[in-house]
Order: sequence, then structure tokens, then C-alpha cells
Amino acid sequence: MERNFVISILIINGPNLNILGKRETHHYGILDLNAIEQKCNELAKELGTELEFIQSNHEGSLVDSIQLAQDKHQGIIINAGAYTHTSVAIVDAVLGVKLPVIEVHLSNIYKREYFRHHSYLSPVAIGGVFGFGATSYLLALRAMVDYLGR
Amino acid sequence: MERNFVISILIINGPNLNILGKRETHHYGILDLNAIEQKCNELAKELGTELEFIQSNHEGSLVDSIQLAQDKHQGIIINAGAYTHTSVAIVDAVLGVKLPVIEVHLSNIYKREYFRHHSYLSPVAIGGVFGFGATSYLLALRAMVDYLGR
Amino acid sequence: MERNFVISILIINGPNLNILGKRETHHYGILDLNAIEQKCNELAKELGTELEFIQSNHEGSLVDSIQLAQDKHQGIIINAGAYTHTSVAIVDAVLGVKLPVIEVHLSNIYKREYFRHHSYLSPVAIGGVFGFGATSYLLALRAMVDYLGR
Amino acid sequence: MERNFVISILIINGPNLNILGKRETHHYGILDLNAIEQKCNELAKELGTELEFIQSNHEGSLVDSIQLAQDKHQGIIINAGAYTHTSVAIVDAVLGVKLPVIEVHLSNIYKREYFRHHSYLSPVAIGGVFGFGATSYLLALRAMVDYLGR
Amino acid sequence: MERNFVISILIINGPNLNILGKRETHHYGILDLNAIEQKCNELAKELGTELEFIQSNHEGSLVDSIQLAQDKHQGIIINAGAYTHTSVAIVDAVLGVKLPVIEVHLSNIYKREYFRHHSYLSPVAIGGVFGFGATSYLLALRAMVDYLGR
Amino acid sequence: MERNFVISILIINGPNLNILGKRETHHYGILDLNAIEQKCNELAKELGTELEFIQSNHEGSLVDSIQLAQDKHQGIIINAGAYTHTSVAIVDAVLGVKLPVIEVHLSNIYKREYFRHHSYLSPVAIGGVFGFGATSYLLALRAMVDYLGR
Amino acid sequence: MERNFVISILIINGPNLNILGKRETHHYGILDLNAIEQKCNELAKELGTELEFIQSNHEGSLVDSIQLAQDKHQGIIINAGAYTHTSVAIVDAVLGVKLPVIEVHLSNIYKREYFRHHSYLSPVAIGGVFGFGATSYLLALRAMVDYLGR
Amino acid sequence: MERNFVISILIINGPNLNILGKRETHHYGILDLNAIEQKCNELAKELGTELEFIQSNHEGSLVDSIQLAQDKHQGIIINAGAYTHTSVAIVDAVLGVKLPVIEVHLSNIYKREYFRHHSYLSPVAIGGVFGFGATSYLLALRAMVDYLGR
Amino acid sequence: MERNFVISILIINGPNLNILGKRETHHYGILDLNAIEQKCNELAKELGTELEFIQSNHEGSLVDSIQLAQDKHQGIIINAGAYTHTSVAIVDAVLGVKLPVIEVHLSNIYKREYFRHHSYLSPVAIGGVFGFGATSYLLALRAMVDYLGR
Amino acid sequence: MERNFVISILIINGPNLNILGKRETHHYGILDLNAIEQKCNELAKELGTELEFIQSNHEGSLVDSIQLAQDKHQGIIINAGAYTHTSVAIVDAVLGVKLPVIEVHLSNIYKREYFRHHSYLSPVAIGGVFGFGATSYLLALRAMVDYLGR
Amino acid sequence: MERNFVISILIINGPNLNILGKRETHHYGILDLNAIEQKCNELAKELGTELEFIQSNHEGSLVDSIQLAQDKHQGIIINAGAYTHTSVAIVDAVLGVKLPVIEVHLSNIYKREYFRHHSYLSPVAIGGVFGFGATSYLLALRAMVDYLGR
Amino acid sequence: MERNFVISILIINGPNLNILGKRETHHYGILDLNAIEQKCNELAKELGTELEFIQSNHEGSLVDSIQLAQDKHQGIIINAGAYTHTSVAIVDAVLGVKLPVIEVHLSNIYKREYFRHHSYLSPVAIGGVFGFGATSYLLALRAMVDYLGR
Repeated sequence: MERNFVISILIINGPNLNILGKRETHHYGILDLNAIEQKCNELAKELGTELEFIQSNHEGSLVDSIQLAQDKHQGIIINAGAYTHTSVAIVDAVLGVKLPVIEVHLSNIYKREYFRHHSYLSPVAIGGVFGFGATSYLLALRAMVDYLGR
Repeated sequence: MERNFVISILIINGPNLNILGKRETHHYGILDLNAIEQKCNELAKELGTELEFIQSNHEGSLVDSIQLAQDKHQGIIINAGAYTHTSVAIVDAVLGVKLPVIEVHLSNIYKREYFRHHSYLSPVAIGGVFGFGATSYLLALRAMVDYLGR
Repeated sequence: MERNFVISILIINGPNLNILGKRETHHYGILDLNAIEQKCNELAKELGTELEFIQSNHEGSLVDSIQLAQDKHQGIIINAGAYTHTSVAIVDAVLGVKLPVIEVHLSNIYKREYFRHHSYLSPVAIGGVFGFGATSYLLALRAMVDYLGR
Repeated sequence: MERNFVISILIINGPNLNILGKRETHHYGILDLNAIEQKCNELAKELGTELEFIQSNHEGSLVDSIQLAQDKHQGIIINAGAYTHTSVAIVDAVLGVKLPVIEVHLSNIYKREYFRHHSYLSPVAIGGVFGFGATSYLLALRAMVDYLGR
Repeated sequence: MERNFVISILIINGPNLNILGKRETHHYGILDLNAIEQKCNELAKELGTELEFIQSNHEGSLVDSIQLAQDKHQGIIINAGAYTHTSVAIVDAVLGVKLPVIEVHLSNIYKREYFRHHSYLSPVAIGGVFGFGATSYLLALRAMVDYLGR
Repeated sequence: MERNFVISILIINGPNLNILGKRETHHYGILDLNAIEQKCNELAKELGTELEFIQSNHEGSLVDSIQLAQDKHQGIIINAGAYTHTSVAIVDAVLGVKLPVIEVHLSNIYKREYFRHHSYLSPVAIGGVFGFGATSYLLALRAMVDYLGR
Repeated sequence: MERNFVISILIINGPNLNILGKRETHHYGILDLNAIEQKCNELAKELGTELEFIQSNHEGSLVDSIQLAQDKHQGIIINAGAYTHTSVAIVDAVLGVKLPVIEVHLSNIYKREYFRHHSYLSPVAIGGVFGFGATSYLLALRAMVDYLGR
Repeated sequence: MERNFVISILIINGPNLNILGKRETHHYGILDLNAIEQKCNELAKELGTELEFIQSNHEGSLVDSIQLAQDKHQGIIINAGAYTHTSVAIVDAVLGVKLPVIEVHLSNIYKREYFRHHSYLSPVAIGGVFGFGATSYLLALRAMVDYLGR
Repeated sequence: MERNFVISILIINGPNLNILGKRETHHYGILDLNAIEQKCNELAKELGTELEFIQSNHEGSLVDSIQLAQDKHQGIIINAGAYTHTSVAIVDAVLGVKLPVIEVHLSNIYKREYFRHHSYLSPVAIGGVFGFGATSYLLALRAMVDYLGR
Repeated sequence: MERNFVISILIINGPNLNILGKRETHHYGILDLNAIEQKCNELAKELGTELEFIQSNHEGSLVDSIQLAQDKHQGIIINAGAYTHTSVAIVDAVLGVKLPVIEVHLSNIYKREYFRHHSYLSPVAIGGVFGFGATSYLLALRAMVDYLGR
Repeated sequence: MERNFVISILIINGPNLNILGKRETHHYGILDLNAIEQKCNELAKELGTELEFIQSNHEGSLVDSIQLAQDKHQGIIINAGAYTHTSVAIVDAVLGVKLPVIEVHLSNIYKREYFRHHSYLSPVAIGGVFGFGATSYLLALRAMVDYLGR
Repeated sequence: MERNFVISILIINGPNLNILGKRETHHYGILDLNAIEQKCNELAKELGTELEFIQSNHEGSLVDSIQLAQDKHQGIIINAGAYTHTSVAIVDAVLGVKLPVIEVHLSNIYKREYFRHHSYLSPVAIGGVFGFGATSYLLALRAMVDYLGR
């Protein structure tokens, strides 16, 4: 299927991802969020897509962002951080917009505390990538482009 | 009991209710929140009460609103949306103000995912209405006026 | 949608509702079942519908009544009392007839013992009203008329 | 406290107790229900009380009997049989009348299947006796007379 | 083992089976209970046994029927419907009579709601058949004749 | 069965029963343990049995007492207090001696905290009495004499 | 529906069924698997169908067999033995082929250890037969022929 | 260990603590948050430390505050209120900064509803104080100064 | 409130606290129990109270001590060690005396094995302090003096 | 880090993946395993690595393959199919070899039956990719090459 | 009891035990399976018994081996490895043969992941030895010889 | 490693082991504790070690004994009897001393009541032996000597 417009993808980052690189580096690595954003932009350029890259510590702001994506983006990649495990509001926002969503985690959440093994997001995402650090984002970006290109 | 002042009721709407009508219409129907507000205002006029009608995607803002209702309203009707199932902070706000609270749901939450079957709000509300779409709000409004008039 | 016939609604009351007004008045109020029936009849007249109002302590009789409603009524409002929490047979009767069913409770069952928090009926009802005493019935009646009138 | 009237106690027997003596004698012994009734009557005479002794396999009939006891008896002894483990309706009937209730079991229900370890009745009874066969009834009768005589 | 008398088998049908054919035909098929009774009678004749075929919506009546079967029948086939999942009284009746019991279900209960996956009856039956519609009854009839003929 | 010797029964009281009468009188009444012992002795005399009545706050001492009862008593009545809910060692002592054991509670443990609803003792006792205050002991004494006299 | 070809049914037997007749005869009876195969063949002839009858102790081999059935058989009867309770791979094989599957058990698995009460197979089978020894197979064969003949 | 700079401690207060003194005084006492702040400041002065004292109803704002503390404070005392029981985001913020955290509660959360018995914060705090009203804060302040002074 | 007598506080230490300083120093620090007692005595002197400081490995002895405190002390501080998680008898002793009780732990029990996360004591204490090593005792002492001085 | 040898990656496919393309295409898509292998080989060539691609329905064979990989490959990508949810043996094989392992799923297992939500493999993998059909494999291949190249 | 024949014992090793010595040496030690076999043979010679020592990664092969042991051995020692926790088929094989079985583990499975704490094998073994490395086998061998010699 | 001193091992026996041989001989065999002690002493002599052999019904005494072992013994073998399943205090004593501990059971606890399947001791022991009667002790003794000799 040919497309005349450039695909735009929103990458949403949840709570505490703004202090990445300074925080629990054994779990999350030493790259900060700017470095990840830059890597994503490089790959996006290579794949011919546009990106918006945002972060918030507020559950409500993440809900707002997902709702607003409807008119500006064709897909959402989300690392919801801690809200992965506690937020039904984000699930409802995902269900409320008609965009495909991919779940991303830097760390392997299944190697950590029991309460991190459950994700409210997984059942409403099309798929997910976890455990590869910044590479998780890049793989999710490829997956989204692949999905939108089908 | 006669009253010299006009009863004022606050209707609080939680996350994702701002995209009602566009979102999962098999669950929530095709009316948007403005339409519901208008119906509520019509009934309020008929019942001789005043209404304030608000919405937020932020848990903390819902807490703020409940606290502020104390001095301006005699009762609260709340559709807490997803926060129904996850927010203890809203429960505490309800316990903290001395106003009667009625719980409302557009959809029948007991027909949906298991995690929507539990409501933190129910035990601190005086009662609730679920499953009748916009009509749920109107019934709750009648219930509140009836309750305050006792 | 216009209708040429008068809507008839069956209101079914389950076990121990026959001793209402004498029983646990802190939960159920001081009105007896006759008083509730009378209030329902007044509202029914106002709404232009007919009512049948029955009570039984026998699970099997409630099943019988639901089955028989098929040919005589357009909707069922049911306060299944204790059978709310234990009867699958009533659920199956509801599934077996093709009438809309609304669940009603006088008290807020979520403020009481844990075993009263689960209702077998809720997922097979179109919606429900709980916690408003006799007013719960009146609201359910309005909800049913509204539903049938759509 | 002196009393001028004769105390009357209702002894209610639930499902399958009518086939006692023929049924699972390793659990319930070889006495049939008539024999137990006779023993109870003898002790009642000795203690100066009157008895009514009934049995039904129908949950609704047990509810009816408890409700009707209000005006005829001062206390209820109940062996609810299998309904001990499944009936909330009987619990509500007990809560609805203002009579003291004592729970009785022929067998030691805690030596049997797991689902017999939970009794809905226990928390609404004043006390209970289990495991002594027909003697359980006699002890309950003494307990009731003692309780009413306080 | 030769027998001089004709085997008589009781087939008991629980709640809502009287509205079979009209009810949830995707689960239960379009045959009504009369049609099933007729098929059973045909097979019974072929197998040289007699049948009694009854239905009740009342748990207590099912208990009564099981007790009374003792003197009239050599085996019981039971489709306890919803009481399969909630009735300990029926279990006790089965334990109380000394007749073999076979459990039957029209639908595959393991494909349905979670609360239908547990049967109180299974552990006290000799065996069971589920999921084959009216054929379930015919297979159970063959199983009972086979069992009694051993 | 005739007996030439006098039956001797051991009544064991567990932790905190030594402060009875001073402790939580809404649960346990105002009688102290001496008063209960005296009442038991009076009834024992009437029933022609001998009693030993002991108390300890130490789980190990209760185990010791049960073991030593083997050669001196024909039956044990035990109010294990808090150890009812936590002690497997007492269960093993009961299983280790060949004496009948009756479980007794002053209060109705099923009306109290959830952790008091489970008794390790019940399944190894012949039966039990709960909820009648000091009368629980007297009924247990009658039950034991009745049991030993069979 | 008329068929020109002979129906072929695959009967698969899981682990330890090869030592039937020598193994736990109180659960499984004294017939060995050859005897059951012979009985099945006799009935198959009578019903005009063909049978293949296989056994393996290897989960993977059972998966292989189910896959290969696709092109050779019209239906599968399976006694998965212990894999009933532990194998998701067999479930997936059943879901992967487009053949109707009937579940069979010699013993009544609901009378045995708790871990035998759950069957992964039941929800993906059209129905099942349990508890009748070798007769379970014969009834399943009749059920399959009946099902395929509809 | 001698220090040349003044220790600064951040005291964070979660949702609904802004209406302290007006809210559920049986749980929280009659002091408002200003009064507690004043008491904390008095003790801080006595102990030679500085304090910052903040409150928010927003989970995200609490996360923000914890992150920002890194560069301004040496320790955090947190009464997360309702978020104690629901917020993983706050846990991650605590794990993300390298400051010691002490958990504080005005009331004894273990005397209240079951859902208040679990704290996500406890395992990531160095310790905690609960149940002493405003004094809880003062004790936590002493604990923090003691901890930082080691 | 002025008091003419000196407050006396009992500090009870449970099992294995006698080997403190030699035992798991990563959890409990290197101070032994004598050192803690001395620190407590110093603070007690400063606060103008008297202390008794005891330790036992025996659950029954801890029960004895709590009972005996009634006539000699005005408050109890208890580090019940392992009995925190298993003893209902100590709970009952606390409920039986009319003294305020404060719970203390050297380590942060919520960072350790799951079975250490539940405390039977917490709901019957006025409050608690955990995780600050010997300082936990000192804070509890301050809390008790503060509580008794109200 | 420079490498002189070509990286070799083993891709292991578990039960029922050999019938891919014919099986539940709504879950798994229409590509068969050969097509996936071919796509993987193309990407491998592009990334400069070698691949071995195997499939088995036997748990033990998967264990064998993982063990043998030690000497021939530098990393393992595994889609364990149904064994994901039931096999500890595969986990132990992964723990036993010293190779990095990546978990792959074609479908989003979190959208399916509850028993597919738990993966024994996840905690021993470095990371995982799920839900993108054949693309899941390609992303995992990129992730492995990236991981090995660090 | 004197025996004329030499006892033969089968030692079965489950999945991944073939890579012992190379695998997780902190759990399993540095001895490989050959070394353990040799130690067992030395002890067997000393104890005057014969041994067969086998290993397989296939559950079905372990089932086969247990079945075949019936005619060749007098006892089975089994280290079922990961299948300890997941295999009902091995349990059934053990139940199917009439040989005593002893369970063995190199490591202390109760110190490891939660899913390793449950053994399906334990309830069907005569006893077990865990945690002593290769010595576990030697102790099991002594236990078996002792058991067979009784 | 050569040792100049004789190893001394403490064997601790918990509640009710003093009545061994009289108690539940189907579980525990007919040997009494003296006989076991004698067998242990014989083996100890053979192995060149010294033994101390003690028993108590008191949890606290077992804790005392474990603590005191530190200075007199090099290892502890413990059959904690019922305290295996309920005592955290014994666990803490084991953690508190720096001696290796081996767990022993006469019976196979996994064949008995569900509450005997969990051992608090297992995770803090180096290993265990269960199910071989008195032989369990002898094997544990060999295991300890082997362990200390490494």
C-alpha cells in the first residue's frame, strides 16, 4: 500500500524516565532519555517516518497525550514506566483512540519484583518489546513502521 | 424539611470521559459529554437544583474538586471512570468531605474485564447506578435530590 | 418508536423482603414492601406503564416467575435479596427469557459483609441501582421505561 | 428473671435430615429424626419448655419457618444441613427475626470435605454445637434454655 | 448377572430445563425437553429399561425426588442445571440414597463462565457426560444400563 | 456399658484464660476461671465424674498436659484459646494420646477476626461447643460424659 | 447429509495407558488397552466407521499424532492421561487441526487428587465422558459418530 | 562524622493531607497540616537541620518532588497518604534518587481497611513510623537526623 | 495533665534478641541487647520515666509478662521478634491488659522474607516503629512518653 | 569489540509451530514456518550472521537443542510455543548453557487465555518480543546481534 | 528376611542432569553425572546391590524407564530435575509400578524459586533426600537398601 | 582438611517426639526415641563423632538449645516436629547461629495433611531427609559428617 503522507509516530515516556541514566543503572543502563530520543530520531529518519518524543510523570498527562495523538499521529509507542502496572486510565485512553500501540520496556520486568510482572497495557497493545535497553525503543519503532506499512 | 437555598450538586467526570461519543461506542453510546451535561441541566432545572459539571483526566484534580465541593455543593455525583478501580486517593477525598456521594457508570462494569468489577468508591458512596448510559446520570441526579430532600 | 400497547413490568422480590420494615431497619429502612409497591404503582401510573409486584422466599419460585414473565411483561426489575449472591438458577432464568432485567438493592451491598459484594445477577442485567432504599425501585422503574422506550 | 409463660423453642431441620438413620450412618449415626425429636421432647419436658420440631428440604421453606417463629417462639435451634454452607437467605431470615439462634450439627463438619468447613450461619448464631450426634441437639436445647433464662 | 425385573431409571432435570429449545439455543440446541424425553424413551425401550423423566426449578424438589427414587428406581441420571454449581443439598441427597448417579450436561460447561467449571455433583457421581446436547442423555442412559448390568 | 471406676476428665485452658473476667468482657463475660472451674465441679459431681482443671500460657505445657492425661483421664476438654488457631503441636499431642477430645470456646469465634475462624483442633476433636460463655464448658462436660458412657 | 466415504476416527491414548490392567486397578479396572481397543473396534464395525488406536508416553508424540490426523481422520477421541492436567501443547495441537475432539477418562477424575480436577483439554473439546471405565471409550465413539453424522 | 553544611530534609505530604484537621478526626486527630509543619520546624531547629515541607494531591507532583530533592536535600520523609497503597511511580522515584527515605503515617494503617495494610513504599524506605499522629513526623525527623549523622 | 507518679514502661524483647550483635548483623546491626537497654535507660532518665527491660525466647513467657505489666507499668514497648508473625496468644494478652502497646522492629521487616511482612501485633498496637536499629527503641520510648502524657 | 569469527544464532521453535499458516490464522497469521525461516535468513545475511533454524514438538528435544547450542552458537532465539507456559526443563537448559536467550512470540499472549499470560522463560531471557507475527523473529534477531555486538 | 538374589536398583536422572558440572555450579557442585554414577557404584558394591544408572531429557522416556523397571529392579531412586515440579505423567508411572521410589535432589529446592518448592513426586515416594549434592544420591541408596532389607 | 578435635553434633527433637512408639505408629513406626538415640550413637561411634540428643515440647526451649549449640557443637540435626510448620522463632535461631543445620522427618510429610507440606525450616537448612523412619536420622548424621568433613 502506497502512502502519500509521512507517517508520524508518538513515543510516550512515563514516570521517572526523565532521570534515566542517573537511576538504577543496573536495570536501565547509562543512556539518558535524550540519547534514546536521538537514536530514535536517527532510525526514524532512516525509516522515513516522523517522531514526537515526550515524557511526563503525571498519569493524567499521559492520558491527555494519548487522546491528542489521534489527530496527529498514526501510531503510539509507550514506555509507561510504573503506570504500566497500576493505570487503568491509560488502558482506557488506548482503547479510546483508534491508533495501534506498542509497549516498550528498557529492563526485563519479569526479572524484577512480582508487582512488575503484570502489565495492564499488554492486552490492549498490538505487541511489545522488553529487556533490550535503548534498543527496545528502536525495535518498537521498526515494528510500528512495519505494522503501519502492511 | 423546607430549604430556603437552592441545592447545588457537583457532577465529576473522570479520565477519558472527555472523548465520550468517539470512544468504544458499544460500551458507552454515541452521546458526548456535552450532551449528557445538557440533559442533566434540563433535569436539574425541572427538579429545582443547580449543577456544576466538570471533567479531568488527572486523579489529583479529581481529589482537588471533591475537596473544594465542601463549601459550594450539597452533594457529589461521580463517574470516576478508570480511577473507580485504582484510586484510594479519591476514596479518601470522599471520606474527607462531609457530602453525600453517588457513584455512576455509563456501562455495566460487571459485564466487562475482571479488573472493572471492583470499585473502591462503592463502599463510601451512599449508593450507585450503573449500565443505563446517559440515563445513569439522570437517575443519580434524582437520587441525590431525593436524598438531600429527606 | 411508537407503541400501541401499554408496557407491563414485573417487579420480583426475593427472600426476606416480605418482612421489610421489621427487619434490620438500619440497612433497609422502615418502609414495608406494601409501601414500596404503592410508591411503584404511583410512579408507574405517572409513566403510563403497568406493574406486577411479587415476592417469594423460594429460589425455584423466582425462577418460575421469571420464565412466566416472557409472555406477560416487557421487562423485569428484580431485587433478588440473598439469592443475588448464591443463585445461578436465577441467572439462567434471566438468560433464558428474552426480557431486559434491571437489578435493584435497597441497601449499599458494598458496605456490608464481603459475601454480599458479589452479584451473580449483575453481568446478566442491563444495569442496576443500589443503596437508595425504596427510591432504588423508583429509579429502576424509570430506567426500565426509558430503556423500553428507546 | 422470672417468667410467667412457658418458653417455646423451634427446632428446624434442613435438607436430607428426613432420611436420617438410613443415610451415611458413619457420619450421622443410626437414630432417625423421630427418635431425635422424641429425645428433645423428653429433655424439653424436664427443662419445662415447649418444642416445635420441623423439617424441610426446601431452602425457601426454612426461610418461611424462621420468619414465622417470631410470633410463636422465643428461640430457634437450627441444623440447616447442606444449606449451612450455601444459604445466605437463611442468614438473612435469622437477621430479620429478633430471636436467638443456635447452630447444631450431628457430625463434625470439620472432619469432612473442605466445602463443609464454612458455615454462613455461625456468625449470626449466638453459638453452636457440632459432632455429638443426637446429643448435639440436647446440648443446644440446654444452651437455649440457659440463654433465655439469663 | 441375570435379572428378572425390569430396570427403572430416573432422569432428573433441574432449573430452566423446562424452557429448553427456547433458551440460549447456541448453548443448548433447539430440541425441547419433551423431544429429549421421547428420544430417551425410545432408547430405553431398545435397551429394555423403564424411565421416569421429571423436571423442577426447585432445589428442594430435586432433593425430594432423589430421596424418593430409592424405592422405585435402580439408578439416577441427573442434569442439575444451575444447581450443579451451587447445591450441596443435592450432593447430600445423592450420598443419602444408595443408587448410582450419572451427571449429564447438554453443553460443554468448561467452555462457559468460570463459575460453571465446578460441579459439586461430579465427585459423588459414578461418571458423567457433557457437551453432546440431547445425545448426552442417551449416552448416560447407555452408561447406566451398562453399569447396572455389570 | 457398666463401669466400676469413676470417670476422670481433664479440662485444659490455654493462654490468657487466667485473666478471664478482667479481659475483653464483651467477648468473654465477667466470670473468672475459678468461677467456671467451680461450676464445672458442681456439674461433675452431679454427673458422677471427677475433674482436673488446669491452665497455662505455654504451648509446650499444654502439649505436656495432653500427653500426661493418657494415664490419668478418660477424656479431655480443651479451650486452647489463641493456640486453637496457631498450634499444630497441640494437634499432634491430641493425635498422640488415645483419648477423646472436645473443643470449647467461650465466645463465638466466627463473629470475630478472620484469623479466629480456623481451628487446627476441630478436625481432631470428636466435637465442639462455642459461644455460650461458661455454659460452653458445662455442655462439653455433659457431651464427654455422654460419649464415654456409650 | 449423506457421505460416500467411511468415517475414520483416531483414538489417542496418553502416558501410562500402556500398562493398563496392571496399574491401580481400583481406579482403572482390569481390562488392558488391547481389550479396550478390541471393544472399540467391535463397536466401530457396528457403527460403520473405521478406527486407528494409538498410545504414547511422550507429550510431543501425542502432538505429532493430532497434527497428522488432519489428513487421515474425521474426528479424534483422546484420553490424554496425565497430560490432561499439564499439557498446553496438546491443546494447541487440537486448536491447530480442524477436527472435532472428544475427551475421555476411564476413572472419575473429580473423585481423585485436586490436581486432576482441572483439564486443559475440556474447553477445546466438543464434549467429554468420564468415569465409566472402558465404556467411556464406547460412549465417546457413539458421540463422535453422532456428531459427525449431524 | 563532622559536617560543615546544614542538613536539609524534605517532608512530602500526599493526597488529602491538605484537609487534615477537618477530615476523619477519629483517624487523624484535630491538628491541621500547618500545625504539624510548625512542630516539625521547631524540632528541626532544635536538631540543627533545615526543612522543606510540601503537599500535593497529584501522584506525578510527588514524583517530581522526590526527583528534585536529589540536589537540595539529604533525606526525605514521606507520608504518601493514599498513594502509599497504589503508587509504583513513587517507589521508582525513591529508587531513582540516592537519598534515604522514611515512611510516616498519622494513623495506624493496620487497624483500618484491608487495602491500607499494604505499602509499596515500605520495602524501599529505610524504616517507618505509624500511628502516633503528628508525633509520627517528629519521630521520623529524629530518625532521619540520627541516620544521616551516623 | 499533671502526674504525681513516675511513669514506668516495660520493654519486652522476644526470641533470639538475646543473641543480638552476634546474629545476622546485616539485618540487626552490631549492638547487643545490653547496649540497647543502656541507651533506653539513658533516654528514659532524660524523659523522666522508669523502664523495665526483659527478654525471653518463650511465647508463653511473653504472654505472662504482658499480663503482669498491668499492675506495674503504664505502657509496653514490644519487639516480639519472630512471634510478631505467628503469635495470636500475644495479641490476646495485649487485648487482655488495658495498657497501650507500641510495636518495634530493629530491621525493616518489609525488605525481608514475605512471611515477615504480616504482623499480628500491628492492629492491636497504638503504633509502631521499624527499620532504625537501636534507634527504633528510642523513638518508641519517646512515642510512649508522648502518648501517656497526652 | 572486534570479532574475527561470524556470529551464529540458533532459532528454536516449539510445538505446533510446524503447522503454522494452517493453524488459527487469526492468532498467528498466514505465513508458514519456512517463510519465516527465509525472512530470518535474509535479515541474517544483511546483518552478517549465520542462523540455524529448528523445530520440534518434543520438550525433551528442545532441551537437547539448547544444550547442544553451547558449542555451536553465540545466542539463542526461542519461540517455545505452549512450553513457554509449562516447561521448567527448558528454563533449566537455558540456565545451564551460558548463552544469551531471547524470547519470541508471534501473537500477543496477553490477549489470549489466562494460562498464556505466564512465561517461565521470561525471567531467564535477556528480553523478549511478542505480538508482531513473523516480524517478532526479525526484531529478536536484530536484538541478538545488537546484544552480541556490545 | 534373607534374600537369595542380588537387589537391583534403578537410578533415574531427569532433564539437564547430563550437563552437570558445567551448569550452575553454585547450585549443583562441580561433579559431573559420571562422577556421581561412579560414587554410587562404589557404594552399591559395598552394600552388595546392583545399579542401573540412566538419564534422559524426555519426560516420556522417564515414564518408559519407570514402567520397564518393574521386571528388572526392586527399587527406583529418581532425581526428576525440572519434571519434579511439572510432571503428573511421572507420578502416574510411579503409581503404576509396584516398586518403592525415593526422591533425590542435589540442591536444596526450598532455597530457590517458588515454583521449585512443590514436588508432584514427594507424595508418591516413600521418602526423599535433598540438598547434599552427590551425597544425596548415596544417602538415598542407603535408604533404599535399608527399606528393601526390612 | 584434617581436624584435631572430635566433631560434636546436636540432634534436637521437637514436640511429641517423646511419645514416639506409642503415637500414630502408622506414621512414625514402633521405635521410641531412646531406640533412635541408641542407633544414632552407634553410627556416631562408627563415624568418629560425638552426639548430644535432646527433646522438648517447648518452642522456646528449642530456640534456647539452638543458640547454646554455637559453642559446643559443629552441626545441628533437627526434627522440629509440629514446629516445622509454625515456628519462625526456630528459623531465626538457626539464622542466628553459624552452624550447619539438617532437617529430618520420620514420616513423609507430603503424604499427610496439607498444612504439613510447608516447612519454615527447609530454606535455612543445608538439606533434609524425610520419610525413612529412624533411618532418616542415620542418613542425616552421615550427611552432616560428610558436610563437616569437606
